[in-house]
Amino acid sequence: MAARNSQSVGLIEPQSLHVAGPMALDCGKTLAQFDLVYETYGTLNAARSNAVLICHALSGNHHAAGYHSEEDSKPGWWDKCIGPGKMIDTDRFFVVSLANLGGYNGSTGPHSLHPETGRHYGPDFPVVTVGDWVRSQDLLRASLDIEQWAAVIGGSLGGMQVMQWAIDYPDRLAHAIVIAAAPKLSAQNIAFNEIARQAIVTDPEFHGGRYYEHGVVPRRGLMLARMLGHITYLSDEAMRAKFGRDLREGRLNYGFDVEFQVESYLRHQGASFVDRFDANTYLLMTKALDYFDPAYATGGDLAQAFAPVTARFMVVSFTSDWRFAPERSREIVDALVDAGKQVSYAEVTSDLGHDDFLLTMPHYVNSLRAYLGRVADEAGT
Amino acid sequence: MAARNSQSVGLIEPQSLHVAGPMALDCGKTLAQFDLVYETYGTLNAARSNAVLICHALSGNHHAAGYHSEEDSKPGWWDKCIGPGKMIDTDRFFVVSLANLGGYNGSTGPHSLHPETGRHYGPDFPVVTVGDWVRSQDLLRASLDIEQWAAVIGGSLGGMQVMQWAIDYPDRLAHAIVIAAAPKLSAQNIAFNEIARQAIVTDPEFHGGRYYEHGVVPRRGLMLARMLGHITYLSDEAMRAKFGRDLREGRLNYGFDVEFQVESYLRHQGASFVDRFDANTYLLMTKALDYFDPAYATGGDLAQAFAPVTARFMVVSFTSDWRFAPERSREIVDALVDAGKQVSYAEVTSDLGHDDFLLTMPHYVNSLRAYLGRVADEAGT
Repeated sequence: MAARNSQSVGLIEPQSLHVAGPMALDCGKTLAQFDLVYETYGTLNAARSNAVLICHALSGNHHAAGYHSEEDSKPGWWDKCIGPGKMIDTDRFFVVSLANLGGYNGSTGPHSLHPETGRHYGPDFPVVTVGDWVRSQDLLRASLDIEQWAAVIGGSLGGMQVMQWAIDYPDRLAHAIVIAAAPKLSAQNIAFNEIARQAIVTDPEFHGGRYYEHGVVPRRGLMLARMLGHITYLSDEAMRAKFGRDLREGRLNYGFDVEFQVESYLRHQGASFVDRFDANTYLLMTKALDYFDPAYATGGDLAQAFAPVTARFMVVSFTSDWRFAPERSREIVDALVDAGKQVSYAEVTSDLGHDDFLLTMPHYVNSLRAYLGRVADEAGT
Repeated sequence: MAARNSQSVGLIEPQSLHVAGPMALDCGKTLAQFDLVYETYGTLNAARSNAVLICHALSGNHHAAGYHSEEDSKPGWWDKCIGPGKMIDTDRFFVVSLANLGGYNGSTGPHSLHPETGRHYGPDFPVVTVGDWVRSQDLLRASLDIEQWAAVIGGSLGGMQVMQWAIDYPDRLAHAIVIAAAPKLSAQNIAFNEIARQAIVTDPEFHGGRYYEHGVVPRRGLMLARMLGHITYLSDEAMRAKFGRDLREGRLNYGFDVEFQVESYLRHQGASFVDRFDANTYLLMTKALDYFDPAYATGGDLAQAFAPVTARFMVVSFTSDWRFAPERSREIVDALVDAGKQVSYAEVTSDLGHDDFLLTMPHYVNSLRAYLGRVADEAGT
């Protein structure tokens, strides 16, 4: 089953890095110790020059490609793009994919047990930022004895981590590949996140974030949050193409059960998410999104924020993405140009919206494959 | 206080029409009896030719202009546009504004007592459609002894009622004024409504719609629904201009309290709505929106649906409205043109989004004032 085909990285076993020392966080708190869970695909070359880091988005984790068991029905979240001969080619690159701090079912997060109290962290897990994540990712880099990433790659919130890497650790990456991202959230983006958070925290089963101890989960709140997310991940056109106003039973039933196909889709997306995600993690991930603003320290001057950058950038946007529209990517590109940095830009004509970055439209795949081919040549792999 | 100024219609007393006979509804059920609450502003002329009907949107009611008492701090919901010398000029028109069936604090709705059981209707109140509303509005017309409306006017869901009037009662209106509307909801519009409904019905205090009898209201759900609505009423640009990423306390606090101004705004909008609106009514209004599709009966051919129309149309859209964008209004205009009907169209450059129809940008007011001036001339008023 899982070995499947020559385009799959096959069966993968997650690994773990235990960090025993304390790490200071942007919020002022300290994590005394933590674990980072990660996976690797492909082979590190002798020069240790072909490693690329994958940074995940809001609902992602370390499991980006391949399968965990022969019985797995679904591969990792970016399996379409990572594998032998794929866009991110594991025949040439050693791909590292980790789960970020604060996540679920991976690295240390709210669901983990606090080493001192033995209780779930829950609401005591500190608010983590994109900057914190990048600092922790650099510990993973050092532990793997990788001097410099050939590239750091990420979509959406992952793309924000890529920018932060290029600013905070300029020597540690040769290329920065930022896909479907934005230099900071708009007020409307924050508004969507805030409603999702309110849905979670006002759910009576949230119990102030200590629901683990009550044997419940704020299912309704998390479901609403996910449904809302899906509105922003899909373009209006994609929804029209996918569902139109199609009726589930072919006729109006004048009631409040599911009538339109789009309702059915959203309820399904919401319900299935609850089984694989944690509400406290959702809160943390949306806060990290809201806070990301590398130009905050430079009074809003993004070009100045990019001043330390030495990595060469590749920025990709999708025309149907209304969550982080192409103009948001062009803000990144313009600031890099103003800062005198090297940047390539691809605006991919697409239909589906924000989630296009997970897929394989030819223009997207060909642009990135060509770019990454040059990165691999450079890395001597 | 309330007489206020010469531009106000002043103190207004709501009136009520009791309909004793049964009314068949689109859903197949019958309302045995009901009340329609309405207000009038201005004076009906001797020829009874200067009456205009105002159709309200999702959260509207009969109280469109003026004040209910000297102590009222806020006037009716469209007071900016209705009054002596205003866009809808009560010196020339006799303006009738009613609350629709299924509403709250006005005409018969889920909060009303069922005449047979003495209980609140709650979830037993039938699903009502735009067609049902127009049929009930026509009973009000007849009761006022008005042969033909000089114009029927409405924004958003109100504009949908205007279209339905023109199709169902072609002889009963001379002009149809459709503002910030759409010929039917898109899948994305339905998705927003569905999430709002899910927020309400999954609130444990919803009690299957019988919350009145439990002495509670599904406050959290209704609050979320309203917050979500506000995202769609405001343009991204308006949010940026109004809030940007401004921090409420000037700095990040790395917590889950309100941090950004936009969060504060949304929570306030949500919380204040709960005190003046009913959750069951919200469900009914969103269903009426979802169901509206006059071209459903003509296999999707809107021009054919408009075949019976004799009213002359004025259609208005706002460039920053992304809930019902200008292209949705142009679908209406194009179908009317294809059907050989008379139609004027104004696309108003605006910043704020869907809610612009409640406001008074000069291009908007001047276009409609000029159009309505001709309507008044025609009506001999």
